[in-house]
Amino acid sequence: MSISPAPLADAPSVPATGANNRRHPIATSDALGGRFGFDLLAEDTQTLARRGRIRTTRGVVETPVFMPVGTQATVKTLDPIEVEATGAQIVLANTYHLMLRPGVDIVREAGGLHAFMGWQRPILTDSGGFQVFSLAANNKVTEQGVTFASHIDGSRWTMTPESVIDLQLGYGSDIMMQLDHVLGLPAEPTAIRDATERSARWLDRAVAAYDEQGGPESRSVLFGIQQGGMDRDLRVWSAQRVAEANVAGCAIGGLSVGEPKPVMAEMLEISTPHLPRNKPRYLMGVGSPEDLWHGVARGIDMFDCVLPTRAARNGGLYTPDGRITITNASFKRRHVPIDETCDCPACTRFTAAYIHHLFRAGEVFGLRLASMHNLRFLARQIDTIRAALDTGTFAAAMSDFDLRYQPVASRGRAGEPGALRAQPERGL
Amino acid sequence: MSISPAPLADAPSVPATGANNRRHPIATSDALGGRFGFDLLAEDTQTLARRGRIRTTRGVVETPVFMPVGTQATVKTLDPIEVEATGAQIVLANTYHLMLRPGVDIVREAGGLHAFMGWQRPILTDSGGFQVFSLAANNKVTEQGVTFASHIDGSRWTMTPESVIDLQLGYGSDIMMQLDHVLGLPAEPTAIRDATERSARWLDRAVAAYDEQGGPESRSVLFGIQQGGMDRDLRVWSAQRVAEANVAGCAIGGLSVGEPKPVMAEMLEISTPHLPRNKPRYLMGVGSPEDLWHGVARGIDMFDCVLPTRAARNGGLYTPDGRITITNASFKRRHVPIDETCDCPACTRFTAAYIHHLFRAGEVFGLRLASMHNLRFLARQIDTIRAALDTGTFAAAMSDFDLRYQPVASRGRAGEPGALRAQPERGL
Repeated sequence: MSISPAPLADAPSVPATGANNRRHPIATSDALGGRFGFDLLAEDTQTLARRGRIRTTRGVVETPVFMPVGTQATVKTLDPIEVEATGAQIVLANTYHLMLRPGVDIVREAGGLHAFMGWQRPILTDSGGFQVFSLAANNKVTEQGVTFASHIDGSRWTMTPESVIDLQLGYGSDIMMQLDHVLGLPAEPTAIRDATERSARWLDRAVAAYDEQGGPESRSVLFGIQQGGMDRDLRVWSAQRVAEANVAGCAIGGLSVGEPKPVMAEMLEISTPHLPRNKPRYLMGVGSPEDLWHGVARGIDMFDCVLPTRAARNGGLYTPDGRITITNASFKRRHVPIDETCDCPACTRFTAAYIHHLFRAGEVFGLRLASMHNLRFLARQIDTIRAALDTGTFAAAMSDFDLRYQPVASRGRAGEPGALRAQPERGL
Repeated sequence: MSISPAPLADAPSVPATGANNRRHPIATSDALGGRFGFDLLAEDTQTLARRGRIRTTRGVVETPVFMPVGTQATVKTLDPIEVEATGAQIVLANTYHLMLRPGVDIVREAGGLHAFMGWQRPILTDSGGFQVFSLAANNKVTEQGVTFASHIDGSRWTMTPESVIDLQLGYGSDIMMQLDHVLGLPAEPTAIRDATERSARWLDRAVAAYDEQGGPESRSVLFGIQQGGMDRDLRVWSAQRVAEANVAGCAIGGLSVGEPKPVMAEMLEISTPHLPRNKPRYLMGVGSPEDLWHGVARGIDMFDCVLPTRAARNGGLYTPDGRITITNASFKRRHVPIDETCDCPACTRFTAAYIHHLFRAGEVFGLRLASMHNLRFLARQIDTIRAALDTGTFAAAMSDFDLRYQPVASRGRAGEPGALRAQPERGL
């Protein structure tokens, strides 16, 4: 993989009228002999927000982007056609889960993950680092890798930086993630330093394995992952390590793991400036509506999260004013859409009262409608974000969002605003 | 409701080339001032099978027909668009369930069941008789009606022949069923006679209530229900009572409740000849592939059953050779469709291996694909049945089906063929 200088690196960031226009990028990077790349199209003048485009062999992904999660080769409750209809350009799947079930051999025999699950657009696979340390039992880390017990049947498995590359190539992922060492918090400072440094060494091994097994002949690229817990110095060091690596994109891991939101905001603000301008930046596991806006404001291009679909299955539905709980009795007789402004099937074809009934009656169709609604809501937020970046009005648009949307957390504690929203300005 | 003589009652039953052609009916009946009716289009010469057409204010239903069940105002796991795409022309909903949740007021406020659940084709609602006696607790029958405890919260409710008409008019059902007294078997002969006679008296009250509350101004018609347990004389008596009633169609209830299949076959054979030729005949709660063919052969026009969708959710999928269990390990590496000849989404877009994976992983999308597949399988069986009736080849087509399709029951007990298939000939 080579990183090309931007053809017009000093071109002004002119506002554009649409997402698909052919603007000259102001910075760019290429991989797979040019078949994969990132084009930075515009930078906001008031925040760190960026407008970009990821080119893959399976199509273009406009950024900022939210990626729905299909852990087990399916976005829970939905048909891939429905996922695409919500506006999704790329979905996630999980290396750890697919390794255990159905197994990489089955996926490879099926012709890869795209064919297996019926999704023809790009797929990003997480390495499984997070799952090994959060879901599996009895995990043991050595410098070589990690051994653990399957959460399904207790069987023993091993993952190494090299084996997860092999697995992800077997799946045919468009974007592969390195294996990282993820710690549960709180942890001792020495343990955090140890894990962060190990993740960096594993990144080097992942790059070497990718160069050997994958490379320009595959359709897959590799992203590195920055760690560092909530330690400023470690975050900066880790960001610099990822920035120096021969990877197609830079991810930020180990955030949104229970820390206060101001801490997450600070970790982003100190680390994104160290990441290459011409590569995509991916904030892993983050995806509430307010975190999308405020993550973008801090220079993030890509997001994923199970929250919109998980919340949906628990009856939590996004509206322009905040998240409502559809099972509440107040919706029993609400014979109007959940959100009059929404163009999803739940809102255009059914009423809140009907969806309330489906949830009360335990009917699966309710989970489907709710999941489509929340994914569509996030896709529309992202559309709004991209349009604002295209027209140079991002900061004002974020203000509008913040004025209206009431995050769940801030409603829980009266008067305490969401943390990421506290300091949206550039450099703060 | 008036019953018109057929305009061309002695016209020959000519084979026709398609389902939508405008043949002259050989017998007909009308209701709602002609806005509802049944046209008998052809009678098989070798069996009791009939080809017909039900006209409703929400469109035509070609018969024989299988009606998917949407007990709680949703066909489990499916979008109404998907239900329609399987070939469904009409769906069922349940008076008992909808009365308890969400309640008739909610449905009425929503503009009726069609608007509430997003289904614009006809809806048949069962009266709840079966559910009151099978699902509710502490039911007490008097001549007036039945009181019982809700299976949801134990609250006490009452249903009368009149109140279930009122409920179903509130739902806006196209076809309403009378309240009947359903007994669990085995039962004492006197209890069966008592319940059968009560059902007949309740039919008279239902007709009176319909004439008062519904009538030609509504979009709803009423069907009567024949009971009689497994008693030949009672079945005939009950069939005659329903035949004499001023109803738009005749249902056969209290079968497929655990009795041996030859008994069910016999009950059909002795009772359908007593039902009016010019009204639709509906065998309630029956819907395995083999029972459709052999029910049609005994003069049945309409079927409903939760079996195809319930079996689907348990991994039981129909194929031309019989029902398979998709969770079996033999499907783990089957990278081909469940049924190469099937045009449903499960078979055209996914493999058996993928659906196996979804079931093993507990993913809802598997339930959806399986449900669509089974409904589509039954719709295609019905299509084959109608085409065979149109071309005068029904008996041969049923032979072909029987030669290939291995019913679940007959596989369970070696050498014992399905009962209904034992004597498919007319009059046996």
